[in-house]
Amino acid sequence: MIQLSDRMLPLEAHRLGIDTRQEPIVFMRADCPVCRSEGFAALSRVLVSSDSQHIIATLNMVSSDLVAPGQIGFSESAWRRLDLTEGMPIHVSHPPPIQSLSYVRAKVYGHSLDEMQFQSIINDIVDGRYADVQVAAFITACGSDNLDLKEITALTRAMIKAGETIDWGMPMVIDKHCVGGLPGNRTTPILVPILAACGLTVPKTSSRAITSPAGTADTMEVLTNVSLSHEQIRAVVKQHGGCLAWGGSVRLSPADDLLIQVERALDIDSEGQLVASVLSKKIAAGATHVLIDIPVGATAKVRSQAQAEKLAATFEAVASSLGLQVRVICTDGSQPVGRGVGPALEARDVLAVLQGKPEAPEDLRARACLLAGALLEMAHKASPGQGEALARETLDSGRAWQKFQAICHAQGALKRPPVAPYRYSLTTNHAGQVQKIDNRLLAKIAKLAGAPLDQAAGVEISVKLGDRVEPNDVLLMIHAESSGELNYAVDFLEAHPEVVELALSEGNEK
Amino acid sequence: MIQLSDRMLPLEAHRLGIDTRQEPIVFMRADCPVCRSEGFAALSRVLVSSDSQHIIATLNMVSSDLVAPGQIGFSESAWRRLDLTEGMPIHVSHPPPIQSLSYVRAKVYGHSLDEMQFQSIINDIVDGRYADVQVAAFITACGSDNLDLKEITALTRAMIKAGETIDWGMPMVIDKHCVGGLPGNRTTPILVPILAACGLTVPKTSSRAITSPAGTADTMEVLTNVSLSHEQIRAVVKQHGGCLAWGGSVRLSPADDLLIQVERALDIDSEGQLVASVLSKKIAAGATHVLIDIPVGATAKVRSQAQAEKLAATFEAVASSLGLQVRVICTDGSQPVGRGVGPALEARDVLAVLQGKPEAPEDLRARACLLAGALLEMAHKASPGQGEALARETLDSGRAWQKFQAICHAQGALKRPPVAPYRYSLTTNHAGQVQKIDNRLLAKIAKLAGAPLDQAAGVEISVKLGDRVEPNDVLLMIHAESSGELNYAVDFLEAHPEVVELALSEGNEK
Repeated sequence: MIQLSDRMLPLEAHRLGIDTRQEPIVFMRADCPVCRSEGFAALSRVLVSSDSQHIIATLNMVSSDLVAPGQIGFSESAWRRLDLTEGMPIHVSHPPPIQSLSYVRAKVYGHSLDEMQFQSIINDIVDGRYADVQVAAFITACGSDNLDLKEITALTRAMIKAGETIDWGMPMVIDKHCVGGLPGNRTTPILVPILAACGLTVPKTSSRAITSPAGTADTMEVLTNVSLSHEQIRAVVKQHGGCLAWGGSVRLSPADDLLIQVERALDIDSEGQLVASVLSKKIAAGATHVLIDIPVGATAKVRSQAQAEKLAATFEAVASSLGLQVRVICTDGSQPVGRGVGPALEARDVLAVLQGKPEAPEDLRARACLLAGALLEMAHKASPGQGEALARETLDSGRAWQKFQAICHAQGALKRPPVAPYRYSLTTNHAGQVQKIDNRLLAKIAKLAGAPLDQAAGVEISVKLGDRVEPNDVLLMIHAESSGELNYAVDFLEAHPEVVELALSEGNEK
Repeated sequence: MIQLSDRMLPLEAHRLGIDTRQEPIVFMRADCPVCRSEGFAALSRVLVSSDSQHIIATLNMVSSDLVAPGQIGFSESAWRRLDLTEGMPIHVSHPPPIQSLSYVRAKVYGHSLDEMQFQSIINDIVDGRYADVQVAAFITACGSDNLDLKEITALTRAMIKAGETIDWGMPMVIDKHCVGGLPGNRTTPILVPILAACGLTVPKTSSRAITSPAGTADTMEVLTNVSLSHEQIRAVVKQHGGCLAWGGSVRLSPADDLLIQVERALDIDSEGQLVASVLSKKIAAGATHVLIDIPVGATAKVRSQAQAEKLAATFEAVASSLGLQVRVICTDGSQPVGRGVGPALEARDVLAVLQGKPEAPEDLRARACLLAGALLEMAHKASPGQGEALARETLDSGRAWQKFQAICHAQGALKRPPVAPYRYSLTTNHAGQVQKIDNRLLAKIAKLAGAPLDQAAGVEISVKLGDRVEPNDVLLMIHAESSGELNYAVDFLEAHPEVVELALSEGNEK
């Protein structure tokens, strides 16, 4: 049978310069003969073909002169995916039904999915066949505890297979991951140079923030270039034993990056997707030995020891089915780590620790050494119980700082963290003792101030649990790159003074 | 504190003529001072305010001259919601956090929601505060059996309260609903005039198709005007005892109409949302006595008697908490009803039954009389066991057809169904007996052919289960308004010949 697209005159591609992020959108005139003959309506999903490639896009109908007769307009993502130039001939037709959506529905109805079904969903997402609402349904259906161990393993495998993987040709490749939820817990940029300086191979790729004010990739981007190609990562690691790159630019588990875009809008994490996301990235990056840090605290992502242990067991079970060595450490998640929350503010803390400055936050330094020590022991570079001391020694000697500088230069630059022009200080009117710091509210304020997109934005927190404060002491300072964002963060802070709670002192200070 | 929006110069409203359906979208230049000072990025949710109103919209960033410096572009839905004229001053700022999204997340994590929480979600959806991906997450989280009876009752109440309700000031107001999934089961337009002719009050408002090729509102729109205001419905019902209107135009349960838009893209129904959707519409429309038809069959929406009984029990329990009298009838859902599938084709079947034509499909007629009879008994217009006979008599006497014409004229018109110019007949090469008809595949073919948006599109099915066919007999005919859609439906049919299965005859026909 002759396809309609072979018989119709093509439309001319026109770049509209509209940024719709990952969802490709095309714009067609309501009076376009193709729309009429194919029966398209607004928000129809359409198959858009150039001479060499095709994508599925969402259709917006245009009733103005935005698009001339005979033209079809493209959003930036659609334009890039098809690799177009102005005026190229374009055919538009009905897309084939997406078989894998029936698996998403099956999951909503509580059925288990097998590896083939997850693979089919993940491949369709990576190939851009899902509208954002369909990705949202998949994420939600897998939310909470809706995936069992077999399904998480299957989803992890599917995510690995949908992207590239790196084979280092070595018996031992080290990686680590923090489950997040703890503002300022930026141990990775400290731990990687410690391990690399001790002779381990640590090709670290990190993600950007999902729902937090900064991911390790956001923080490292303040200090160096993190968008490295596969070949660049290999070169840096070969030379220095480690790197600190963004995972997304090398298409390791590209499904993860697409899912994260929609998860961000929904603010939904699930245990299954969390484990699949982390382990798929690690395995795709070629890791053999992985340490996972789970901070536990009332306002951390993981709120109780029981929840942490359940998550740790899931990590260990799935990793074991996939042939990966994993160790999980539960750490104190009762308050932020270091001083800064936000890419540049955290980068300043990292530099202070690496440079051994007297004002370096001791808690960040201690955590980095604890985790590095555990990995040194896993990798048999230190005897059991001796890892942390070796880590401290590597840091104190300046070897970690030298390694960090070498890695950054190899990645293209060692930059200074930018400084935000707009500030607001929260001071206390009373004397007292700090008894509670709310990680979630603090993260929210940092995000409202513009983090992570505005690198210099965030919150600098001046107190720790148990600290005594006097009237007019600064509790925290909001940093913003624009007055609008500063105002918005301050509005929120004023509505939520419980972000830092004091036990007030009676009478005179002792 | 001074809000940024009070200090910044406003932007000028510019209508772009882009149809994005329900989700309001605004288009701002990446170099716009407001974007920079507020820190907006593509897909940010923004608060858009005119002098008198405000909405939350999704931001698309523009890097071309689509939007001039100092302008902000609007999609059609955003333009209409703000009731703008070209050049009106517009302020854009950060929207307040949407509290009710935390309830959606709680639902994903398996928690029960109370009425206040559902009300908050539903109000935010109706007020346009949710992006489509967030609506998708809510629908998915409520999918399958995730709502208990208390929650379904709470959701139903919330949906009623978010819209208008009609009080008829009468002790008995009749309504009916079919759970759907059975192509061609268009009994409502026959049953309403039968009941109205028997003196009952039947102010019928129907929905458009969600995932089917036609809803009753789509079919009735072929024959008359269905977009009636509250006052018009009241006038028609006062004069004739019944009406056949679209529910969406009177803002009865407007949340339902918004949820349906996204459900359509996801193709997800849930028992809880189904019951809330149906009962909220019925109660908002002022019904006191409601009959619910659940067709049961292997390829109907409800596939087993057990599933039907569970659904019936949910309907009865929720209705009873809400003070509504409900009777549920399970009917045969093993094959399509009547001949036509699609708005105009179904309208032709309805007219044939009402007009008592010899070619009128007997199965459609029988079902309409069965259901009308049950309602006549519920309303004490007939003794138990006598309702169906009264319904048949009202139909045979021509009184139902007279009433139907009167209602259509009162609604503004009695139109002839349009006829599709493009056709394709599926014939059989063999003699045999029809042993299976797949409702789902049939509905899919009708939708691919353009139903319900193309009124004349759909499928005409020429055979019933058990029918004997000879070589070259027509099994079904696809109708389409465009060649593109015809081709697409035919492609699908050729890939799925099992839509009509024959038991082939051996040797000669007897």
